[in-house]
Amino acid sequence: GARKMEDYGRFLALLGSALLVGFVSVVFSLVWVFQYREGLSWDGSPREFNWHPVLIITGFVFIQGIAIIVYRLPWTWKCSKLLMKFIHAGLNTIAMILAIVSMVAVFEFHNARNIPNMYSLHSWIGLTAVIFYSLQLILGFAVFLLPFAPVPLRAALMPIHVYSGLTIFATVIATALMGITEKLIFSLKNPAYSASPPEATFVNCLGLLLVIFGALILWMASRSHWKRPPEKNAKVLQPIGGTPEGTEAESTMTDGSNADKSDLRINSEAARKQNLKLDEAGQRSTM
Amino acid sequence: GARKMEDYGRFLALLGSALLVGFVSVVFSLVWVFQYREGLSWDGSPREFNWHPVLIITGFVFIQGIAIIVYRLPWTWKCSKLLMKFIHAGLNTIAMILAIVSMVAVFEFHNARNIPNMYSLHSWIGLTAVIFYSLQLILGFAVFLLPFAPVPLRAALMPIHVYSGLTIFATVIATALMGITEKLIFSLKNPAYSASPPEATFVNCLGLLLVIFGALILWMASRSHWKRPPEKNAKVLQPIGGTPEGTEAESTMTDGSNADKSDLRINSEAARKQNLKLDEAGQRSTM
Repeated sequence: GARKMEDYGRFLALLGSALLVGFVSVVFSLVWVFQYREGLSWDGSPREFNWHPVLIITGFVFIQGIAIIVYRLPWTWKCSKLLMKFIHAGLNTIAMILAIVSMVAVFEFHNARNIPNMYSLHSWIGLTAVIFYSLQLILGFAVFLLPFAPVPLRAALMPIHVYSGLTIFATVIATALMGITEKLIFSLKNPAYSASPPEATFVNCLGLLLVIFGALILWMASRSHWKRPPEKNAKVLQPIGGTPEGTEAESTMTDGSNADKSDLRINSEAARKQNLKLDEAGQRSTM
Repeated sequence: GARKMEDYGRFLALLGSALLVGFVSVVFSLVWVFQYREGLSWDGSPREFNWHPVLIITGFVFIQGIAIIVYRLPWTWKCSKLLMKFIHAGLNTIAMILAIVSMVAVFEFHNARNIPNMYSLHSWIGLTAVIFYSLQLILGFAVFLLPFAPVPLRAALMPIHVYSGLTIFATVIATALMGITEKLIFSLKNPAYSASPPEATFVNCLGLLLVIFGALILWMASRSHWKRPPEKNAKVLQPIGGTPEGTEAESTMTDGSNADKSDLRINSEAARKQNLKLDEAGQRSTM
């Protein structure tokens, strides 16, 4: 009752903060390129480069962050799990496309100026992140969206999918911070970065916002009491004395399976409550 | 039986990989400063600066990483929880001291050369991380090591402690990557960083090793089936039909309480197994 409402209020406050910080980050990236860096164009000039931070922060940080927590929005719990998977995959696809376009902008800018490609740690880790992100998307689509993967495979891959997603997301933010560092050093010459001109201070603040956004998303994503509840008509957990396989079935139901298609339709409200309880216990003892 | 041994083998393989990658990172930092950057001294020269990457990678990355997973080492589960807490706090204290000394090295180097302090995003986020790390250490000591905090407070703070610890650790690695980026741009002049001299490639590899180390530690830390099992003589979970407070008590027992001092000494092997089972279910449904 009251406790649940309080928890719901806390979720909304965090969601609001994340959306605000993410949105302000995108605005900051636009102010950076339009106020300090001659705006945007697609002509091999530094204005083409400017698409890189704007698209990365919009797509690879903000949209990816929203994609990560989209299952947690309580008003989506009445929607089918399949629909939510499409939204999750769709947002991640948009983020991937924006990330790839943003890389093309840098390559074209480098090539137009005879600047070498792929020499920096930023580029190494950034490209690695894009490759892993694409693999994650393809594997996620094949295993969790297409109806062919058996339930035990989904159950086995779900923790890896979640871990990879969060680790890639954190790596993307780390890469953005390296990129900001590079760009400020290269483009601030007179006064230099070390003289802290307004642009330097402003873009440092953008970097801080990205860290705060990442921390908020990771908090929301790792509270399992904010997870989408298991479907009513899904497989239920075996009794407490059962074999360890019972817990895998539970995890599948909560995380990976498309419960609507489940063959087993044991609809015991008591068993469902027990599952929720296990779920809650799990949440409190992890992260 | 066989399944448990297989899981134990997997844990050992990951631990071995993390130790190897962490150790090689420290060696790489030493090779960097001795092979390419004139070694170490404490005289305001660039050789004093060189303590910064060496101490950060040794203390703030490697030792902090070990401190995070020290409860997971199965051969420590026969040791008292209190002893393990001292080891966890001790390793983190060493890491904090090394991080502070490494910052002093940079400030002294900057001051000797009239280079401004605290202008870069690296310095902003790095100092923030050190401050949060110190707060985390003080709060952790006061709440989880000193015997005064009531069990519900420990239970409430433990998920925050774990989340903060992992988030700070990830932030520290991100900051190290920014630092590597800065240092390579500033110190490689002829040939420049963009010409990929051997030092650039070598130190980029060091950056990749830090990311791999971080990813391994985060994986090990977020598998709750590798958690230290709850103490035998601790409070047990209420029956499955109990109130939500029951799960808090469980989480306290697993994570935060000094079970040796527990007043309740209900030693039911069946109840303990049930807790382990809940714990395992939790693990599979989070991260």
